[in-house]
Amino acid sequence: MAELRQNMVTKEWVIIADERAKRPDDYIESHQQAITETQTLYDPDCPFCPKNEELDLEIECFPAKGAWQTRAVHNRYPALSKDGNLSRTFKGVHRKISGVGHHEVVVENPRHNTTLALMSPEEIKLLLETFYHRGWSIRKDSRIEQIIYFKNHGERAGASLKHPHSQIIGLPVVPNNIRNRIDVTRRYFDDTGDCAYCTMMQDELKSQERLVAVNDHFVAFVLYAAPSPFHMWILPRNHSVSFLYSQSEELDDLAKMLRDVLRRLYIGLRDPAYNLIIRTAPVKEISNDYTHWYVTVVPRLSRTAGFELGSGIFINPAIPKESAAFLRRVKV
Amino acid sequence: MAELRQNMVTKEWVIIADERAKRPDDYIESHQQAITETQTLYDPDCPFCPKNEELDLEIECFPAKGAWQTRAVHNRYPALSKDGNLSRTFKGVHRKISGVGHHEVVVENPRHNTTLALMSPEEIKLLLETFYHRGWSIRKDSRIEQIIYFKNHGERAGASLKHPHSQIIGLPVVPNNIRNRIDVTRRYFDDTGDCAYCTMMQDELKSQERLVAVNDHFVAFVLYAAPSPFHMWILPRNHSVSFLYSQSEELDDLAKMLRDVLRRLYIGLRDPAYNLIIRTAPVKEISNDYTHWYVTVVPRLSRTAGFELGSGIFINPAIPKESAAFLRRVKV
Repeated sequence: MAELRQNMVTKEWVIIADERAKRPDDYIESHQQAITETQTLYDPDCPFCPKNEELDLEIECFPAKGAWQTRAVHNRYPALSKDGNLSRTFKGVHRKISGVGHHEVVVENPRHNTTLALMSPEEIKLLLETFYHRGWSIRKDSRIEQIIYFKNHGERAGASLKHPHSQIIGLPVVPNNIRNRIDVTRRYFDDTGDCAYCTMMQDELKSQERLVAVNDHFVAFVLYAAPSPFHMWILPRNHSVSFLYSQSEELDDLAKMLRDVLRRLYIGLRDPAYNLIIRTAPVKEISNDYTHWYVTVVPRLSRTAGFELGSGIFINPAIPKESAAFLRRVKV
Repeated sequence: MAELRQNMVTKEWVIIADERAKRPDDYIESHQQAITETQTLYDPDCPFCPKNEELDLEIECFPAKGAWQTRAVHNRYPALSKDGNLSRTFKGVHRKISGVGHHEVVVENPRHNTTLALMSPEEIKLLLETFYHRGWSIRKDSRIEQIIYFKNHGERAGASLKHPHSQIIGLPVVPNNIRNRIDVTRRYFDDTGDCAYCTMMQDELKSQERLVAVNDHFVAFVLYAAPSPFHMWILPRNHSVSFLYSQSEELDDLAKMLRDVLRRLYIGLRDPAYNLIIRTAPVKEISNDYTHWYVTVVPRLSRTAGFELGSGIFINPAIPKESAAFLRRVKV
């Protein structure tokens, strides 16, 4: 029989649907070649390829001197404007905030035809350092309350350009979604004295059923209440509210972990589309016992339809422990 | 400049992104023929076409005698099982509920190549009566806390079969998503003495900017804080917590309203994929001043990507009042 399972930090239920269950290898993409293998090293029409850089949009490059390896630029079509005053307007039933904020793109690598799963740990670490550097910079803007770091890989995950890139959005408000988790985990802390994320991680380390990979500073597992197939969380083992407090050796380990996990998807499922998100505390909430930053990796292997929109409950036809076992077996 | 707008009943923010703004007619589908026009009246391989009925799955037909016009059947691959005991298990950090519930499909019409936008008001009313009838039946099951009525039209909206059909899922728990709205609107009522939905509807009727259609019992408008292009709500003008308390003349007017709104999408945007959901109160909460049932219509014209997954904030490149004006101009 199917099961409804609750995520302890979001309180969201999911349906793990065994009547509709698919085996993990049913999710292997049918395209013959990985997305990136169909591309060329350099695309003359790509605005992110070396020699085609849109210099008016440039923020900074890493390394600062010589040929760039990563490059932060303004989004040409930003969702929010970096200039302008922050204003909140209440008028009758309408509540609005002026659309100020930051919307940056991080070009992850000069090569057009690569992706995180194919990069070296050093290249991925440089990307994480770029996030770190840009995050600290955006954080200086007192209008900003929340920073979202994310990557869309593949068309089904919302990527419109193929050149490997990520995005950073600085928001003038803490999203309701993030506020809700803070409320839930704060109550959990008040009740138990524990961080809910630390508790969940310890449980995963103990049971090992849903573990995908472990190193000194990070643990990757498929969620017990995974809303979609292969939905993973990568948690820092030391309690910390923000990605921006990471030490250099933690970024080393996160780079290795991301490479490992994304290679398991790339090789095991043949380069599926995915979203990757760094979920971290609101910028002005610099310390507490119950917010724990982490990375989530969401392969886009199923669709949301009316039921999910109407209930917020996702139907997942993949059994989390089977998905994890499949990924553990992939030879990276 | 872009704006962040807050939905007053969900507290969710959306970004109405004018830098990326598209004109309403940019959303017209590029397919040459409407989805339904490419199909035949009868498909020998369709399990929902007359003569191919899977009789073992049948629940009931309407009308009860003679040729059926609508037909309720069990889903062959149900997300939840109708048999079995409701049990809740807490074990360490894991919280689960046995997957019991109802998962029914409503075949909306004997014709394979039709869709709500092409049906008569009488045919749509019979569908609504089928929902009503099945809802009252599912409600008798004391294990059920919440019923979700929904329709996926088109592949991008998650429809896997082309024959026009809807689904009904009876859940053994009130989803967190629905509970959150109840909490928000209850606080609004406590503060103001008003139903937030009634207040929102009165505001839309007064401003008329985002109105799409109005009749005696229903109002359809594009949301002020629409998370995606052409995202509409259809509210009953009389405060009522549940679809299941609708009177026959209200169902008449809802059928006409659905036909009107869906024809505007069908003709104006050339048969886009959409989800339609009836959002109604938990079955055991039969009366209050702050829950107001309604229908939501969500054309699937944009993708959710990493930012939406990470923040819960949707970026909508369509200006709601422009979307509404476009739909009002469509000749139905």
